[in-house]
Amino acid sequence: MFELFIEEILAKKKGIQGKFQERTYIRLTNAYGGWPEGSIVFKDLIIAGFPKIGRINSLESGLREQFSGSFWMEEKVDGYNVRIFHYQGQIYCATRGGFICPFSTDRIVDLLNVDIFIDHPNLVLCGEITGPGSPYIEGPTPLVSEDVKLFIFDIAKGSTMEFLPERQKHELISRYRLPSVKNFDLFENQPKDLRQIKKILLSLHNEYREGVIFKEEPFGRRAKYVTANSDLNDIAVFSHKILDVSPNYFIDRILRYVLFLTELGLIEENNWEEKLGKAFVCGIKEVLKNVREHGRSSRFFRCRFRESKNAEYFIEHLKHIPGHQEHVIIKKLYQENSYWVLEFEKTFPSTSDTLRNWLSGALRFD
Amino acid sequence: MFELFIEEILAKKKGIQGKFQERTYIRLTNAYGGWPEGSIVFKDLIIAGFPKIGRINSLESGLREQFSGSFWMEEKVDGYNVRIFHYQGQIYCATRGGFICPFSTDRIVDLLNVDIFIDHPNLVLCGEITGPGSPYIEGPTPLVSEDVKLFIFDIAKGSTMEFLPERQKHELISRYRLPSVKNFDLFENQPKDLRQIKKILLSLHNEYREGVIFKEEPFGRRAKYVTANSDLNDIAVFSHKILDVSPNYFIDRILRYVLFLTELGLIEENNWEEKLGKAFVCGIKEVLKNVREHGRSSRFFRCRFRESKNAEYFIEHLKHIPGHQEHVIIKKLYQENSYWVLEFEKTFPSTSDTLRNWLSGALRFD
Repeated sequence: MFELFIEEILAKKKGIQGKFQERTYIRLTNAYGGWPEGSIVFKDLIIAGFPKIGRINSLESGLREQFSGSFWMEEKVDGYNVRIFHYQGQIYCATRGGFICPFSTDRIVDLLNVDIFIDHPNLVLCGEITGPGSPYIEGPTPLVSEDVKLFIFDIAKGSTMEFLPERQKHELISRYRLPSVKNFDLFENQPKDLRQIKKILLSLHNEYREGVIFKEEPFGRRAKYVTANSDLNDIAVFSHKILDVSPNYFIDRILRYVLFLTELGLIEENNWEEKLGKAFVCGIKEVLKNVREHGRSSRFFRCRFRESKNAEYFIEHLKHIPGHQEHVIIKKLYQENSYWVLEFEKTFPSTSDTLRNWLSGALRFD
Repeated sequence: MFELFIEEILAKKKGIQGKFQERTYIRLTNAYGGWPEGSIVFKDLIIAGFPKIGRINSLESGLREQFSGSFWMEEKVDGYNVRIFHYQGQIYCATRGGFICPFSTDRIVDLLNVDIFIDHPNLVLCGEITGPGSPYIEGPTPLVSEDVKLFIFDIAKGSTMEFLPERQKHELISRYRLPSVKNFDLFENQPKDLRQIKKILLSLHNEYREGVIFKEEPFGRRAKYVTANSDLNDIAVFSHKILDVSPNYFIDRILRYVLFLTELGLIEENNWEEKLGKAFVCGIKEVLKNVREHGRSSRFFRCRFRESKNAEYFIEHLKHIPGHQEHVIIKKLYQENSYWVLEFEKTFPSTSDTLRNWLSGALRFD
């Protein structure tokens, strides 16, 4: 059914073939034929890429500008986005880039009661996986203390990412006991609601949680807004690979940090300057120590798989993630209780090489 | 004599014609014909561009790697680089980019006893001009509390930037009472000297002075090294135009800041984290206030000229500096005592536009 489309995608270099177990598929690396980047194309099924959600950097004016009617406020969880779907008798998880993720697919039965797909085989569940046992997320996450958890935030009616209305989504979440993000209710652009929204954001901020998504109904406008402590956490975590990340990553977060603290009336209290400085300095001190002692900056990962062959597929998968190709060192794969544990290290080459060069006393022209 | 060379430069687009008063010249925008970028070509004289000086980001290993014999240590002043030379009966000042600077040329007789050019018309004096009355330097400078001052650091034997040996330079500086940078003496790579170098750097750092240049003799190797407080000052000053500067500007300084504090054994004391955070937060708070209240972030300049026609030339000159074209607002030119005072404002368009957009509640996809 989509055979010709697949040929076209490959001929025009808009997508790349992937393989998981015996299954091959195409992931769109660019939007094409009306399908967004990250869409997954099988011979007889397409799962659309997850739509990008814009960000407001100013809460009050942002809500006023973006939403004319009422809107839901839902927690935004800091993890990696998965689309969970049923295809020819199996449940698959796809990451944002359109890869079928061997880790998430392997572990999905631990994270979700998949019965919902028996009754509704055409639904696509969209959620965030996070936790210290994630193979992608670096740094701490306040919602999960060990291994990984899933938080569903959208259910799409079919493969085109046409989302169910919130109430219908809540009903399915409740009926199938799906793990989901916290929903904070429906709000409007009025002073009372704004006060309540700020109160919720303040408590998320105090718990180092990432932020929220606003979702208008029925028009489907969406916007995200994140907390200052989440920006701080990003800076602290990414300072370990400070020269492997776009420098704009940091500048954006510094600006948003000040904007959030200003808008929530926190800027004049509590050593926010010191916290921002610490986020950079602590990470950089550690990086310098690692580069001096081990010649590199890197991060250690430890993930559990149900099946050892999926760990092998995952090792293969890591080679195909842009930017990861040469920078993963597989350490160990061993059995522990009923799981297979994969340990690996991601190294940060620019940070490592540049700082090693600086520490060696090299001359630098800038 | 250089007429053909000038034609060649223009034909190959390696230089641009400039004009100051009745004098035309070519400034090299790229290295060409053995002459570096920033060289100034007249019909019968070429003044070479000032050579780039590399930076060491690690003091001990840097000195060890770069210098095998003894080396001078001299203060590095945070200002703008000028080459001062004599041509057909007049003294001119050229900036790094190869512009004859109407401001510096106008004011040079206030900054320097130009008698040296009577005895030595072929010398080129290289120095740094700085102070709150400078038209280029933003932010405070600890060495000059009002107007501007000149600090000579090199004397070139002719127009090729072949520098005089340090002792001969000191002799001329002393004989003609030239204003000069502080020279901290000759050092070697040995523990006693290194302790002394660190002591001097610590006191420069405590006075918010920029740093030092190391100069090897007779081989001419050079390296610069700057203090953490100078990095901090750069961050605080440039945060006013945070989105008009390469974001690497900030990342580099954050890294150098931590390296300096670590190397000088200061990192564990005195709230360095807080100071780093403050450098960002204070500037950004002010920018947000300015964008909210005036719609833009900008900086105000006030410079004194001896002759009003040079102020006019300077206004014209501002239009030719890359990146300045549309972002200078001339405010006033008026006489005060024996000087003409020019007031102008430089606006920071990306910082202004982006933050205005964020504050308006716009949706942003990143």
